[in-house]
Amino acid sequence: MTKKEIFENICRKKSFLCVGLDTDVKKIPQFLGNDIFAFNRVIIDATADLCIAYKPNLAFYESEGSLGWEALEKTVNYVRTNYPDQFIIADAKRGDIGNTANLYARAFFERIPFDAITVAPYMGKDSIAPFLKYNDKWVIILTLTSNESAADFQFFENKNSEFLFEKVLKTSMEWGNSENIMYVVGATKAEMLSEIRKIIPNHFLLVPGVGAQGGSLQEVAKFGMNSECGLIVNSSRQILYADNGKDFAAAARAETKKIQQEMEKILINDEKKS
Amino acid sequence: MTKKEIFENICRKKSFLCVGLDTDVKKIPQFLGNDIFAFNRVIIDATADLCIAYKPNLAFYESEGSLGWEALEKTVNYVRTNYPDQFIIADAKRGDIGNTANLYARAFFERIPFDAITVAPYMGKDSIAPFLKYNDKWVIILTLTSNESAADFQFFENKNSEFLFEKVLKTSMEWGNSENIMYVVGATKAEMLSEIRKIIPNHFLLVPGVGAQGGSLQEVAKFGMNSECGLIVNSSRQILYADNGKDFAAAARAETKKIQQEMEKILINDEKKS
Repeated sequence: MTKKEIFENICRKKSFLCVGLDTDVKKIPQFLGNDIFAFNRVIIDATADLCIAYKPNLAFYESEGSLGWEALEKTVNYVRTNYPDQFIIADAKRGDIGNTANLYARAFFERIPFDAITVAPYMGKDSIAPFLKYNDKWVIILTLTSNESAADFQFFENKNSEFLFEKVLKTSMEWGNSENIMYVVGATKAEMLSEIRKIIPNHFLLVPGVGAQGGSLQEVAKFGMNSECGLIVNSSRQILYADNGKDFAAAARAETKKIQQEMEKILINDEKKS
Repeated sequence: MTKKEIFENICRKKSFLCVGLDTDVKKIPQFLGNDIFAFNRVIIDATADLCIAYKPNLAFYESEGSLGWEALEKTVNYVRTNYPDQFIIADAKRGDIGNTANLYARAFFERIPFDAITVAPYMGKDSIAPFLKYNDKWVIILTLTSNESAADFQFFENKNSEFLFEKVLKTSMEWGNSENIMYVVGATKAEMLSEIRKIIPNHFLLVPGVGAQGGSLQEVAKFGMNSECGLIVNSSRQILYADNGKDFAAAARAETKKIQQEMEKILINDEKKS
């Protein structure tokens, strides 16, 4: 999917929401047993008109072994077939030497038809370059994450007062462009978004941390939005586990609708300003 | 497995070799089709008396989808059942927020009975702590990797001339101890091992990069060995793809034997010195 197509989807749906499919068999309605795919399918059908992306987090599938991996494949294929306008992100946070990264690219871009994969930058360029060889596919590089201990290393500072996360931005933007690289910036670090926008004005940002993790959508939009929106904001637990009884689909839809409506207001206000 | 047990295995087998099960269906003997497990089982039977650890690299299994994941489960269970003295490492390089890291721990320490998992440090303590709650299980933290672009960020330097990889060592050693944390240090960076040993004299190091990637076993031992060996050196391609015909098992064994014998000499010389 191209950047232009993502922006068109955002305008048409009045939403820049990504639904995080962090499907934990211990939290889904009991009557579904451990059928991850059955749960996902209902969630997807209940939310697809209100969001522009889905993001399965691999950990949740791997924790169920090969059956979990099968549910992942079914989920992605289901979205690809029934909702072809959805941008599908493998939240995998992979990162390995080039030889191995080639295999990860095969796994996530060929074996399973994802549009994008999240990657960790620690091993540098050759751990990420193999993903960039695919047309209309994306890497989304961890930059400034939403968790408390993000500060352990991401704020490691060199003698020019440059933080590691800034170095990651500046170095990695040379590896590709705003048509094949996005960055993960946590909503809990919204105040840092202005600084980040000075370095990468045109790239899309994937923003987790709104909702359960405490980030504010208003703040994220205020500091991070650009002329093509430039934001894909993720929400997982708030939507998936809105209710764990028979009405979980309606409850998930209601939560999604609430976020979409807030996004619609933000997009309209932003249009008026420009 | 405890540190003491790992060292006992090294002494008994006169080997500190880890065989990397980077099984690429495009490189295994054609008559095996894409049966990863059939290949692995033969390799394991041919090498188990000569090595102390196996390390499947997840990328290779994921590139075959849920069937690949099934082959991974079978492989680990096969080693666990038939060679209970083997230390089994998930070369997964995972790293995510605490909530998600819990699920990765469930995947690799409960669902599949690995002894250890490689992890990326970029997201800090709470991405690694969930793995440390398990008794006799290990995390192996990426520190100084064997690839060329390791320098992109791992040598990012603060105003006290401390590199990021040193910061990773110093910070992470507070999260656990030499009984549950190891570090990945590439064989291609052997000359850095002396500096690293000043910071972590007692931790085991997992050393990839000998063989196909060009690192030297002699150099690694010279600079990295400690009084309990302290090294697990990995070899993958050199062993797995020594031959891709009918005699691949014998060829793999011969390559493994060659490395083991070199290790035996190193261990004997080291004993004489002390």
